[in-house]
Amino acid sequence: VPNSRRPRRPKIGVFDSGVGGLTVLRALVERIPGADYLYFGDTARLPYGSKSAHTVAHYAVGAVHYLQDQGAELLVIACNTATALALSEIKAAADVKVIGVVEPGADAAAAVTRKRKVVVIGTEATISSHAYRRALEAREVAVREKACPLLVPLVEEGWVEHAVTEQVARIYLSEAFSEDASDADVLVLGCTHYPLIKPLLRRVAPEHIAIVDSAESTAQDVARQLQIEPPSSAQKSSVQTRSERRTVPQLKFFATDSAEKFRKMGTRFLGLPVEDVLHVDLKE
Amino acid sequence: VPNSRRPRRPKIGVFDSGVGGLTVLRALVERIPGADYLYFGDTARLPYGSKSAHTVAHYAVGAVHYLQDQGAELLVIACNTATALALSEIKAAADVKVIGVVEPGADAAAAVTRKRKVVVIGTEATISSHAYRRALEAREVAVREKACPLLVPLVEEGWVEHAVTEQVARIYLSEAFSEDASDADVLVLGCTHYPLIKPLLRRVAPEHIAIVDSAESTAQDVARQLQIEPPSSAQKSSVQTRSERRTVPQLKFFATDSAEKFRKMGTRFLGLPVEDVLHVDLKE
Repeated sequence: VPNSRRPRRPKIGVFDSGVGGLTVLRALVERIPGADYLYFGDTARLPYGSKSAHTVAHYAVGAVHYLQDQGAELLVIACNTATALALSEIKAAADVKVIGVVEPGADAAAAVTRKRKVVVIGTEATISSHAYRRALEAREVAVREKACPLLVPLVEEGWVEHAVTEQVARIYLSEAFSEDASDADVLVLGCTHYPLIKPLLRRVAPEHIAIVDSAESTAQDVARQLQIEPPSSAQKSSVQTRSERRTVPQLKFFATDSAEKFRKMGTRFLGLPVEDVLHVDLKE
Repeated sequence: VPNSRRPRRPKIGVFDSGVGGLTVLRALVERIPGADYLYFGDTARLPYGSKSAHTVAHYAVGAVHYLQDQGAELLVIACNTATALALSEIKAAADVKVIGVVEPGADAAAAVTRKRKVVVIGTEATISSHAYRRALEAREVAVREKACPLLVPLVEEGWVEHAVTEQVARIYLSEAFSEDASDADVLVLGCTHYPLIKPLLRRVAPEHIAIVDSAESTAQDVARQLQIEPPSSAQKSSVQTRSERRTVPQLKFFATDSAEKFRKMGTRFLGLPVEDVLHVDLKE
Protein backbone atom coordinates (compact mmCIF):
# COMPACT_ATOMS: atom_id res chain seq x y z
CA VAL A 1 0.00 0.00 0.00
CA PRO A 2 1.77 3.16 -1.16
CA ASN A 3 1.77 6.12 1.21
CA SER A 4 0.03 8.33 -1.33
CA ARG A 5 -3.15 6.28 -1.05
CA ARG A 6 -3.25 6.62 2.71
CA PRO A 7 -1.53 9.90 3.44
CA ARG A 8 -2.03 9.69 7.20
CA ARG A 9 -3.70 7.60 9.85
CA PRO A 10 -7.01 8.94 11.13
CA LYS A 11 -7.14 9.71 14.85
CA ILE A 12 -10.47 8.51 16.22
CA GLY A 13 -11.74 9.45 19.68
CA VAL A 14 -14.09 6.99 21.35
CA PHE A 15 -16.07 8.03 24.39
CA ASP A 16 -17.96 5.90 26.88
CA SER A 17 -19.02 6.05 30.52
CA GLY A 18 -16.86 3.02 31.29
CA VAL A 19 -15.42 -0.12 29.71
CA GLY A 20 -18.58 -1.12 27.82
CA GLY A 21 -17.68 1.08 24.85
CA LEU A 22 -14.64 -1.12 24.31
CA THR A 23 -16.95 -3.46 22.38
CA VAL A 24 -17.43 -0.56 19.96
CA LEU A 25 -13.67 0.03 19.87
CA ARG A 26 -13.23 -3.69 19.18
CA ALA A 27 -15.59 -3.43 16.20
CA LEU A 28 -13.78 -0.27 15.01
CA VAL A 29 -10.36 -1.91 15.25
CA GLU A 30 -11.59 -4.92 13.25
CA ARG A 31 -13.09 -2.67 10.60
CA ILE A 32 -10.42 0.08 10.56
CA PRO A 33 -7.14 -1.39 11.81
CA GLY A 34 -4.99 1.38 10.31
CA ALA A 35 -6.09 4.13 12.70
CA ASP A 36 -4.99 5.69 15.98
CA TYR A 37 -7.57 5.38 18.72
CA LEU A 38 -8.05 7.46 21.84
CA TYR A 39 -10.56 5.86 24.22
CA PHE A 40 -12.02 7.82 27.11
CA GLY A 41 -13.83 5.86 29.86
CA ASP A 42 -15.51 8.07 32.46
CA THR A 43 -15.23 5.29 35.04
CA ALA A 44 -15.31 7.60 38.08
CA ARG A 45 -18.82 8.71 37.18
CA LEU A 46 -20.37 5.61 35.64
CA PRO A 47 -22.99 4.41 35.14
CA TYR A 48 -24.73 7.12 33.17
CA GLY A 49 -27.84 4.92 33.05
CA SER A 50 -29.16 6.18 36.38
CA LYS A 51 -28.40 9.85 35.73
CA SER A 52 -30.44 12.71 34.29
CA ALA A 53 -29.99 14.00 30.73
CA HIS A 54 -28.53 17.22 32.13
CA THR A 55 -25.86 15.42 34.15
CA VAL A 56 -24.97 13.06 31.30
CA ALA A 57 -24.62 15.92 28.80
CA HIS A 58 -22.40 17.81 31.22
CA TYR A 59 -20.07 14.84 31.77
CA ALA A 60 -19.96 13.84 28.09
CA VAL A 61 -19.11 17.32 26.85
CA GLY A 62 -16.17 17.49 29.28
CA ALA A 63 -14.83 14.16 28.05
CA VAL A 64 -15.31 15.07 24.40
CA HIS A 65 -13.36 18.30 24.86
CA TYR A 66 -10.57 16.28 26.44
CA LEU A 67 -10.44 13.92 23.44
CA GLN A 68 -10.35 16.87 21.04
CA ASP A 69 -7.46 18.38 23.01
CA GLN A 70 -5.66 15.05 22.52
CA GLY A 71 -6.07 15.40 18.76
CA ALA A 72 -9.18 13.36 17.96
CA GLU A 73 -10.42 14.26 14.47
CA LEU A 74 -13.62 12.25 14.64
CA LEU A 75 -15.58 11.33 17.76
CA VAL A 76 -17.55 8.17 18.37
CA ILE A 77 -20.02 8.30 21.26
CA ALA A 78 -19.89 4.60 22.12
CA CYS A 79 -22.24 5.01 25.06
CA ASN A 80 -25.88 4.36 24.17
CA THR A 81 -27.06 6.40 27.14
CA ALA A 82 -24.92 9.42 26.26
CA THR A 83 -25.98 9.16 22.61
CA ALA A 84 -29.63 8.83 23.58
CA LEU A 85 -29.66 11.64 26.13
CA ALA A 86 -27.05 14.09 24.93
CA LEU A 87 -25.96 13.64 21.30
CA SER A 88 -27.22 17.05 20.15
CA GLU A 89 -25.49 18.83 23.06
CA ILE A 90 -22.27 16.92 22.32
CA LYS A 91 -22.46 17.80 18.61
CA ALA A 92 -23.04 21.45 19.48
CA ALA A 93 -20.01 21.48 21.79
CA ALA A 94 -17.62 19.59 19.48
CA ASP A 95 -15.56 21.06 16.64
CA VAL A 96 -15.23 17.74 14.80
CA LYS A 97 -17.64 15.17 13.37
CA VAL A 98 -19.53 13.21 16.05
CA ILE A 99 -21.08 9.77 15.45
CA GLY A 100 -23.36 8.18 18.05
CA VAL A 101 -24.43 4.52 18.24
CA VAL A 102 -28.18 4.99 17.86
CA GLU A 103 -28.47 6.13 14.23
CA PRO A 104 -26.16 3.41 12.80
CA GLY A 105 -28.04 0.78 14.82
CA ALA A 106 -31.37 2.11 13.55
CA ASP A 107 -30.07 2.14 9.95
CA ALA A 108 -28.94 -1.46 10.19
CA ALA A 109 -32.23 -2.58 11.77
CA ALA A 110 -34.29 -0.76 9.14
CA ALA A 111 -32.23 -2.42 6.39
CA VAL A 112 -32.76 -5.91 7.81
CA THR A 113 -36.38 -5.96 8.98
CA ARG A 114 -38.99 -7.35 6.60
CA LYS A 115 -41.91 -6.98 8.98
CA ARG A 116 -41.02 -3.32 9.62
CA LYS A 117 -41.15 -4.15 13.33
CA VAL A 118 -38.17 -4.48 15.68
CA VAL A 119 -37.41 -4.89 19.38
CA VAL A 120 -34.73 -2.73 21.04
CA ILE A 121 -33.18 -3.71 24.36
CA GLY A 122 -30.97 -1.45 26.50
CA THR A 123 -30.51 0.16 29.88
CA GLU A 124 -33.34 1.96 31.63
CA ALA A 125 -32.00 5.39 30.58
CA THR A 126 -31.48 4.48 26.92
CA ILE A 127 -34.95 2.96 26.65
CA SER A 128 -36.80 5.70 28.50
CA SER A 129 -35.11 8.33 26.32
CA HIS A 130 -36.94 6.75 23.33
CA ALA A 131 -33.97 7.66 21.11
CA TYR A 132 -34.19 4.35 19.23
CA ARG A 133 -37.96 4.72 18.90
CA ARG A 134 -37.56 8.13 17.28
CA ALA A 135 -34.75 6.96 14.98
CA LEU A 136 -36.66 3.84 13.87
CA GLU A 137 -40.03 5.51 13.45
CA ALA A 138 -38.31 8.09 11.22
CA ARG A 139 -37.35 5.06 9.09
CA GLU A 140 -40.96 3.82 9.14
CA VAL A 141 -40.18 0.89 11.41
CA ALA A 142 -42.40 0.08 14.42
CA VAL A 143 -40.57 -0.47 17.70
CA ARG A 144 -41.04 -2.29 20.98
CA GLU A 145 -38.54 -0.95 23.53
CA LYS A 146 -37.56 -3.04 26.56
CA ALA A 147 -35.27 -2.01 29.42
CA CYS A 148 -33.10 -4.89 30.70
CA PRO A 149 -31.31 -3.38 33.72
CA LEU A 150 -29.91 -6.69 35.02
CA LEU A 151 -27.94 -7.61 31.91
CA VAL A 152 -25.10 -5.13 32.50
CA PRO A 153 -24.36 -6.31 36.07
CA LEU A 154 -24.61 -9.96 34.92
CA VAL A 155 -22.02 -9.29 32.19
CA GLU A 156 -19.83 -7.44 34.69
CA GLU A 157 -20.10 -10.40 37.10
CA GLY A 158 -18.66 -12.48 34.25
CA TRP A 159 -21.79 -14.65 34.02
CA VAL A 160 -21.86 -14.47 30.22
CA GLU A 161 -22.70 -18.18 29.84
CA HIS A 162 -24.57 -18.71 33.09
CA ALA A 163 -27.97 -20.30 33.77
CA VAL A 164 -29.10 -17.23 35.72
CA THR A 165 -28.26 -14.91 32.81
CA GLU A 166 -30.14 -17.21 30.46
CA GLN A 167 -33.18 -17.18 32.77
CA VAL A 168 -33.07 -13.38 33.06
CA ALA A 169 -32.69 -13.01 29.27
CA ARG A 170 -35.63 -15.38 28.74
CA ILE A 171 -37.83 -13.28 31.04
CA TYR A 172 -36.83 -10.01 29.38
CA LEU A 173 -37.11 -11.30 25.79
CA SER A 174 -40.44 -13.05 26.34
CA GLU A 175 -41.80 -9.75 27.66
CA ALA A 176 -40.19 -7.88 24.76
CA PHE A 177 -41.58 -10.15 22.02
CA SER A 178 -45.11 -10.37 23.45
CA GLU A 179 -48.47 -9.14 22.14
CA ASP A 180 -48.16 -6.59 19.34
CA ALA A 181 -44.39 -7.17 19.12
CA SER A 182 -44.74 -10.94 18.69
CA ASP A 183 -44.15 -10.64 14.94
CA ALA A 184 -41.06 -8.39 15.22
CA ASP A 185 -38.14 -9.89 13.28
CA VAL A 186 -35.11 -7.92 14.52
CA LEU A 187 -33.52 -7.55 17.95
CA VAL A 188 -31.33 -4.44 18.34
CA LEU A 189 -28.64 -4.68 21.04
CA GLY A 190 -28.86 -1.09 22.29
CA CYS A 191 -26.19 -1.41 24.97
CA THR A 192 -22.44 -1.83 24.64
CA HIS A 193 -22.35 -4.67 27.18
CA TYR A 194 -24.68 -6.91 25.21
CA PRO A 195 -22.25 -8.07 22.47
CA LEU A 196 -20.58 -10.17 25.20
CA ILE A 197 -23.77 -12.19 25.64
CA LYS A 198 -24.67 -12.28 21.95
CA PRO A 199 -24.28 -16.10 21.74
CA LEU A 200 -26.60 -16.50 24.75
CA LEU A 201 -29.13 -14.01 23.36
CA ARG A 202 -28.94 -15.83 20.01
CA ARG A 203 -30.00 -19.06 21.77
CA VAL A 204 -32.75 -17.41 23.81
CA ALA A 205 -34.27 -15.21 21.09
CA PRO A 206 -36.79 -16.73 18.66
CA GLU A 207 -34.87 -18.44 15.83
CA HIS A 208 -36.11 -16.30 12.96
CA ILE A 209 -35.00 -13.06 14.67
CA ALA A 210 -32.02 -11.19 13.20
CA ILE A 211 -29.72 -9.61 15.79
CA VAL A 212 -28.36 -6.13 15.06
CA ASP A 213 -25.36 -5.11 17.11
CA SER A 214 -25.07 -1.30 17.33
CA ALA A 215 -21.30 -1.61 17.87
CA GLU A 216 -20.75 -3.25 14.47
CA SER A 217 -23.17 -0.90 12.72
CA THR A 218 -21.34 2.09 14.18
CA ALA A 219 -17.93 0.81 13.06
CA GLN A 220 -19.28 0.38 9.52
CA ASP A 221 -20.67 3.91 9.60
CA VAL A 222 -17.33 5.35 10.75
CA ALA A 223 -15.53 3.47 7.96
CA ARG A 224 -18.00 4.88 5.43
CA GLN A 225 -17.45 8.40 6.75
CA LEU A 226 -13.68 8.00 6.47
CA GLN A 227 -14.06 6.30 3.08
CA ILE A 228 -12.11 3.29 4.24
CA GLU A 229 -12.47 0.02 2.33
CA PRO A 230 -13.06 -3.20 4.25
CA PRO A 231 -9.67 -4.74 5.20
CA SER A 232 -8.46 -7.36 2.73
CA SER A 233 -8.35 -10.98 3.82
CA ALA A 234 -4.54 -10.80 3.76
CA GLN A 235 -4.61 -7.96 6.30
CA LYS A 236 -7.13 -9.85 8.40
CA SER A 237 -4.98 -12.99 8.60
CA SER A 238 -2.44 -13.30 11.36
CA VAL A 239 0.45 -13.63 8.91
CA GLN A 240 1.48 -10.07 8.06
CA THR A 241 3.97 -8.84 5.53
CA ARG A 242 6.18 -5.88 6.42
CA SER A 243 4.10 -3.39 4.43
CA GLU A 244 0.97 -4.51 6.19
CA ARG A 245 2.34 -4.00 9.70
CA ARG A 246 1.53 -0.32 9.55
CA THR A 247 -2.16 -1.24 9.79
CA VAL A 248 -1.77 -2.32 13.42
CA PRO A 249 -3.96 0.06 15.43
CA GLN A 250 -2.48 2.37 18.03
CA LEU A 251 -4.58 2.33 21.19
CA LYS A 252 -4.43 4.85 24.00
CA PHE A 253 -6.83 4.84 26.95
CA PHE A 254 -7.95 7.48 29.43
CA ALA A 255 -9.95 6.64 32.56
CA THR A 256 -11.30 8.96 35.25
CA ASP A 257 -11.00 6.27 37.94
CA SER A 258 -8.26 3.71 38.66
CA ALA A 259 -6.14 2.91 35.59
CA GLU A 260 -5.42 -0.54 37.03
CA LYS A 261 -9.12 -1.43 37.32
CA PHE A 262 -9.68 -0.20 33.78
CA ARG A 263 -6.84 -2.37 32.51
CA LYS A 264 -8.18 -5.49 34.23
CA MET A 265 -11.85 -5.12 33.32
CA GLY A 266 -11.17 -3.64 29.88
CA THR A 267 -9.32 -6.61 28.44
CA ARG A 268 -12.47 -8.76 28.61
CA PHE A 269 -14.49 -6.18 26.70
CA LEU A 270 -11.85 -5.32 24.10
CA GLY A 271 -10.65 -8.86 23.50
CA LEU A 272 -7.14 -7.40 23.27
CA PRO A 273 -4.69 -6.43 26.01
CA VAL A 274 -5.48 -2.97 27.42
CA GLU A 275 -2.08 -1.47 28.15
CA ASP A 276 -1.52 2.24 27.75
CA VAL A 277 -3.99 3.65 30.32
CA LEU A 278 -3.69 7.15 31.75
CA HIS A 279 -5.71 8.29 34.75
CA VAL A 280 -7.29 11.71 34.17
CA ASP A 281 -9.18 13.99 36.52
CA LEU A 282 -11.97 16.03 34.97
CA LYS A 283 -13.18 18.99 36.97
CA GLU A 284 -16.95 19.26 36.92
CA VAL B 1 -42.54 14.40 78.41
CA PRO B 2 -41.51 17.73 79.93
CA ASN B 3 -39.33 19.98 77.81
CA SER B 4 -36.54 19.98 80.37
CA ARG B 5 -35.82 16.32 79.74
CA ARG B 6 -35.46 16.84 76.02
CA PRO B 7 -34.32 20.40 75.58
CA ARG B 8 -34.06 20.20 71.81
CA ARG B 9 -34.32 17.79 68.92
CA PRO B 10 -31.03 16.42 67.65
CA LYS B 11 -30.25 17.18 64.01
CA ILE B 12 -28.78 14.05 62.40
CA GLY B 13 -27.09 14.07 59.01
CA VAL B 14 -27.22 10.82 57.04
CA PHE B 15 -24.99 10.36 54.03
CA ASP B 16 -25.15 7.75 51.28
CA SER B 17 -24.18 7.40 47.63
CA GLY B 18 -27.83 6.98 46.69
CA VAL B 19 -31.16 5.75 48.04
CA GLY B 20 -29.79 2.60 49.71
CA GLY B 21 -28.92 4.49 52.91
CA LEU B 22 -32.63 5.16 53.36
CA THR B 23 -32.81 1.72 54.98
CA VAL B 24 -30.45 3.13 57.63
CA LEU B 25 -32.60 6.27 57.91
CA ARG B 26 -35.63 3.99 58.28
CA ALA B 27 -33.95 2.18 61.18
CA LEU B 28 -32.94 5.54 62.72
CA VAL B 29 -36.48 6.95 62.47
CA GLU B 30 -37.87 3.83 64.13
CA ARG B 31 -35.32 4.03 66.92
CA ILE B 32 -35.15 7.85 67.32
CA PRO B 33 -38.43 9.33 66.06
CA GLY B 34 -37.94 12.64 67.87
CA ALA B 35 -35.09 13.94 65.70
CA ASP B 36 -34.60 16.09 62.61
CA TYR B 37 -32.95 14.24 59.75
CA LEU B 38 -31.00 15.58 56.81
CA TYR B 39 -30.37 12.88 54.23
CA PHE B 40 -27.82 13.40 51.45
CA GLY B 41 -27.90 10.98 48.49
CA ASP B 42 -25.05 11.50 46.01
CA THR B 43 -27.16 10.05 43.21
CA ALA B 44 -25.31 11.84 40.40
CA ARG B 45 -22.13 9.95 41.25
CA LEU B 46 -23.38 6.57 42.46
CA PRO B 47 -22.49 3.80 42.75
CA TYR B 48 -19.40 4.22 44.88
CA GLY B 49 -18.86 0.45 44.70
CA SER B 50 -16.91 0.65 41.45
CA LYS B 51 -14.78 3.64 42.44
CA SER B 52 -11.36 3.99 44.04
CA ALA B 53 -10.86 4.90 47.71
CA HIS B 54 -9.47 8.25 46.65
CA THR B 55 -12.53 9.15 44.57
CA VAL B 56 -14.97 7.93 47.24
CA ALA B 57 -13.23 9.92 50.00
CA HIS B 58 -13.28 13.03 47.83
CA TYR B 59 -17.01 12.74 47.12
CA ALA B 60 -17.96 11.82 50.70
CA VAL B 61 -16.06 14.71 52.27
CA GLY B 62 -17.86 17.17 49.97
CA ALA B 63 -21.24 15.77 50.96
CA VAL B 64 -20.39 15.72 54.66
CA HIS B 65 -19.36 19.38 54.56
CA TYR B 66 -22.67 20.15 52.91
CA LEU B 67 -24.60 18.38 55.69
CA GLN B 68 -22.61 20.26 58.35
CA ASP B 69 -23.42 23.56 56.64
CA GLN B 70 -27.10 22.56 56.89
CA GLY B 71 -26.70 22.16 60.65
CA ALA B 72 -26.06 18.44 61.16
CA GLU B 73 -24.70 17.86 64.67
CA LEU B 74 -23.97 14.18 64.18
CA LEU B 75 -23.17 12.39 60.93
CA VAL B 76 -24.09 8.85 59.98
CA ILE B 77 -22.20 7.41 57.01
CA ALA B 78 -24.95 5.06 55.83
CA CYS B 79 -22.93 3.88 52.85
CA ASN B 80 -20.94 0.72 53.54
CA THR B 81 -18.54 1.50 50.72
CA ALA B 82 -17.84 5.04 51.93
CA THR B 83 -17.43 3.77 55.49
CA ALA B 84 -15.13 0.99 54.38
CA LEU B 85 -12.98 3.10 52.08
CA ALA B 86 -13.02 6.57 53.60
CA LEU B 87 -14.22 6.73 57.22
CA SER B 88 -10.96 8.04 58.60
CA GLU B 89 -10.74 10.76 55.92
CA ILE B 90 -14.35 11.74 56.61
CA LYS B 91 -13.71 11.88 60.37
CA ALA B 92 -10.63 14.01 59.82
CA ALA B 93 -12.60 16.42 57.62
CA ALA B 94 -15.70 16.69 59.86
CA ASP B 95 -16.16 18.94 62.90
CA VAL B 96 -18.86 16.75 64.45
CA LYS B 97 -19.13 13.14 65.56
CA VAL B 98 -19.15 10.65 62.66
CA ILE B 99 -20.60 7.13 62.88
CA GLY B 100 -20.11 4.60 60.09
CA VAL B 101 -22.03 1.37 59.51
CA VAL B 102 -19.13 -1.07 59.78
CA GLU B 103 -18.25 -0.83 63.49
CA PRO B 104 -21.85 -1.13 64.76
CA GLY B 105 -22.39 -4.12 62.46
CA ALA B 106 -19.20 -5.75 63.71
CA ASP B 107 -20.21 -5.08 67.33
CA ALA B 108 -23.59 -6.71 66.84
CA ALA B 109 -22.09 -9.72 65.04
CA ALA B 110 -19.45 -10.19 67.75
CA ALA B 111 -22.17 -10.08 70.42
CA VAL B 112 -24.29 -12.72 68.67
CA THR B 113 -21.79 -15.28 67.35
CA ARG B 114 -21.11 -18.34 69.51
CA LYS B 115 -18.74 -20.00 67.06
CA ARG B 116 -16.70 -16.79 66.76
CA LYS B 117 -17.06 -17.12 63.01
CA VAL B 118 -19.24 -14.98 60.75
CA VAL B 119 -19.93 -14.38 57.07
CA VAL B 120 -20.12 -10.81 55.71
CA ILE B 121 -21.79 -10.08 52.36
CA GLY B 122 -21.57 -6.76 50.54
CA THR B 123 -20.59 -5.00 47.32
CA GLU B 124 -17.27 -5.68 45.63
CA ALA B 125 -15.75 -2.46 47.01
CA THR B 126 -16.90 -3.02 50.61
CA ILE B 127 -15.64 -6.60 50.61
CA SER B 128 -12.31 -5.92 48.94
CA SER B 129 -11.63 -3.08 51.39
CA HIS B 130 -11.63 -5.75 54.17
CA ALA B 131 -13.10 -3.17 56.57
CA TYR B 132 -15.44 -5.77 58.13
CA ARG B 133 -12.58 -8.27 58.37
CA ARG B 134 -10.44 -5.81 60.29
CA ALA B 135 -13.31 -4.76 62.58
CA LEU B 136 -14.31 -8.36 63.32
CA GLU B 137 -10.80 -9.71 63.78
CA ALA B 138 -10.19 -6.90 66.28
CA ARG B 139 -13.13 -8.46 68.18
CA GLU B 140 -11.57 -11.93 67.88
CA VAL B 141 -14.11 -13.15 65.39
CA ALA B 142 -13.07 -15.05 62.25
CA VAL B 143 -14.60 -13.82 58.99
CA ARG B 144 -15.50 -15.10 55.56
CA GLU B 145 -16.13 -12.17 53.22
CA LYS B 146 -18.21 -12.61 50.07
CA ALA B 147 -18.92 -10.00 47.40
CA CYS B 148 -22.45 -10.26 45.96
CA PRO B 149 -22.48 -7.67 43.15
CA LEU B 150 -25.79 -8.81 41.63
CA LEU B 151 -27.94 -8.28 44.73
CA VAL B 152 -28.05 -4.47 44.47
CA PRO B 153 -29.29 -4.43 40.84
CA LEU B 154 -31.80 -7.20 41.65
CA VAL B 155 -33.20 -5.10 44.52
CA GLU B 156 -33.26 -2.02 42.29
CA GLU B 157 -35.13 -4.03 39.62
CA GLY B 158 -37.74 -4.65 42.32
CA TRP B 159 -37.19 -8.43 42.25
CA VAL B 160 -37.15 -8.69 46.06
CA GLU B 161 -39.30 -11.86 46.07
CA HIS B 162 -38.26 -13.30 42.71
CA ALA B 163 -37.07 -16.79 41.76
CA VAL B 164 -33.98 -15.34 40.06
CA THR B 165 -32.98 -13.40 43.18
CA GLU B 166 -33.45 -16.54 45.25
CA GLN B 167 -31.26 -18.52 42.84
CA VAL B 168 -28.56 -15.83 42.89
CA ALA B 169 -28.70 -15.63 46.70
CA ARG B 170 -28.42 -19.43 46.91
CA ILE B 171 -25.30 -19.39 44.72
CA TYR B 172 -23.68 -16.58 46.69
CA LEU B 173 -24.54 -17.98 50.14
CA SER B 174 -23.51 -21.53 49.31
CA GLU B 175 -20.12 -20.17 48.23
CA ALA B 176 -19.99 -17.97 51.34
CA PHE B 177 -20.78 -20.76 53.83
CA SER B 178 -18.47 -23.35 52.24
CA GLU B 179 -15.33 -25.06 53.52
CA ASP B 180 -13.79 -23.33 56.55
CA ALA B 181 -16.81 -21.02 56.85
CA SER B 182 -19.31 -23.89 56.94
CA ASP B 183 -19.64 -23.57 60.72
CA ALA B 184 -20.12 -19.76 60.76
CA ASP B 185 -23.28 -18.86 62.68
CA VAL B 186 -23.88 -15.20 61.73
CA LEU B 187 -24.58 -13.49 58.40
CA VAL B 188 -23.81 -9.76 58.37
CA LEU B 189 -25.73 -7.73 55.77
CA GLY B 190 -22.92 -5.35 54.82
CA CYS B 191 -24.89 -3.37 52.24
CA THR B 192 -27.77 -0.96 52.67
CA HIS B 193 -29.81 -2.60 49.90
CA TYR B 194 -29.92 -6.00 51.58
CA PRO B 195 -32.52 -5.26 54.29
CA LEU B 196 -35.10 -5.24 51.46
CA ILE B 197 -34.36 -8.91 50.72
CA LYS B 198 -33.94 -9.95 54.35
CA PRO B 199 -37.00 -12.27 54.24
CA LEU B 200 -35.58 -13.97 51.12
CA LEU B 201 -32.08 -14.24 52.64
CA ARG B 202 -33.66 -15.63 55.82
CA ARG B 203 -35.23 -18.45 53.74
CA VAL B 204 -32.06 -19.15 51.74
CA ALA B 205 -29.52 -19.00 54.58
CA PRO B 206 -28.97 -22.07 56.76
CA GLU B 207 -31.64 -22.08 59.50
CA HIS B 208 -29.32 -21.80 62.49
CA ILE B 209 -27.69 -18.62 61.12
CA ALA B 210 -28.43 -15.30 62.87
CA ILE B 211 -28.75 -12.33 60.52
CA VAL B 212 -27.18 -9.04 61.61
CA ASP B 213 -28.43 -5.97 59.77
CA SER B 214 -25.85 -3.15 59.88
CA ALA B 215 -28.64 -0.58 59.45
CA GLU B 216 -30.34 -1.59 62.71
CA SER B 217 -27.04 -1.90 64.58
CA THR B 218 -26.06 1.58 63.47
CA ALA B 219 -29.38 3.10 64.59
CA GLN B 220 -28.89 1.51 68.02
CA ASP B 221 -25.38 2.91 68.20
CA VAL B 222 -26.57 6.43 67.31
CA ALA B 223 -29.28 6.21 70.00
CA ARG B 224 -26.64 5.16 72.53
CA GLN B 225 -24.42 8.07 71.54
CA LEU B 226 -27.30 10.52 71.94
CA GLN B 227 -28.39 8.78 75.18
CA ILE B 228 -31.88 8.24 73.82
CA GLU B 229 -34.05 5.59 75.44
CA PRO B 230 -35.95 3.15 73.20
CA PRO B 231 -39.35 4.63 72.26
CA SER B 232 -42.16 3.54 74.60
CA SER B 233 -44.86 1.29 73.22
CA ALA B 234 -47.31 4.22 73.51
CA GLN B 235 -45.09 6.31 71.22
CA LYS B 236 -44.70 3.40 68.82
CA SER B 237 -48.47 2.86 68.49
CA SER B 238 -50.35 4.74 65.81
CA VAL B 239 -52.63 6.40 68.37
CA GLN B 240 -50.74 9.48 69.52
CA THR B 241 -51.62 11.97 72.25
CA ARG B 242 -50.93 15.65 71.69
CA SER B 243 -47.74 15.64 73.79
CA GLU B 244 -46.36 12.73 71.76
CA ARG B 245 -46.82 14.39 68.39
CA ARG B 246 -43.57 16.23 68.77
CA THR B 247 -41.77 12.90 68.28
CA VAL B 248 -42.71 12.76 64.60
CA PRO B 249 -39.40 12.95 62.71
CA GLN B 250 -38.65 15.83 60.38
CA LEU B 251 -37.12 14.54 57.15
CA LYS B 252 -35.28 16.60 54.57
CA PHE B 253 -33.55 15.14 51.54
CA PHE B 254 -30.77 16.33 49.27
CA ALA B 255 -29.90 14.58 46.00
CA THR B 256 -27.18 15.42 43.47
CA ASP B 257 -29.24 14.03 40.60
CA SER B 258 -32.96 14.34 39.73
CA ALA B 259 -35.12 15.07 42.80
CA GLU B 260 -38.06 13.38 41.10
CA LYS B 261 -36.16 10.11 40.59
CA PHE B 262 -35.00 10.22 44.20
CA ARG B 263 -38.56 10.68 45.40
CA LYS B 264 -39.86 7.75 43.37
CA MET B 265 -37.10 5.25 44.15
CA GLY B 266 -36.65 6.46 47.73
CA THR B 267 -40.12 5.65 48.98
CA ARG B 268 -39.49 1.91 48.49
CA PHE B 269 -36.31 2.02 50.55
CA LEU B 270 -37.60 4.30 53.30
CA GLY B 271 -41.02 2.70 53.66
CA LEU B 272 -42.38 6.25 54.13
CA PRO B 273 -43.23 8.93 51.60
CA VAL B 274 -40.14 10.84 50.46
CA GLU B 275 -41.36 14.39 49.97
CA ASP B 276 -39.04 17.28 50.73
CA VAL B 277 -36.22 16.67 48.20
CA LEU B 278 -33.83 19.40 47.10
CA HIS B 279 -31.51 18.96 44.13
CA VAL B 280 -27.96 20.11 44.95
CA ASP B 281 -24.92 20.51 42.72
CA LEU B 282 -21.59 19.71 44.33
CA LYS B 283 -18.53 21.03 42.53
CA GLU B 284 -15.76 18.45 42.49
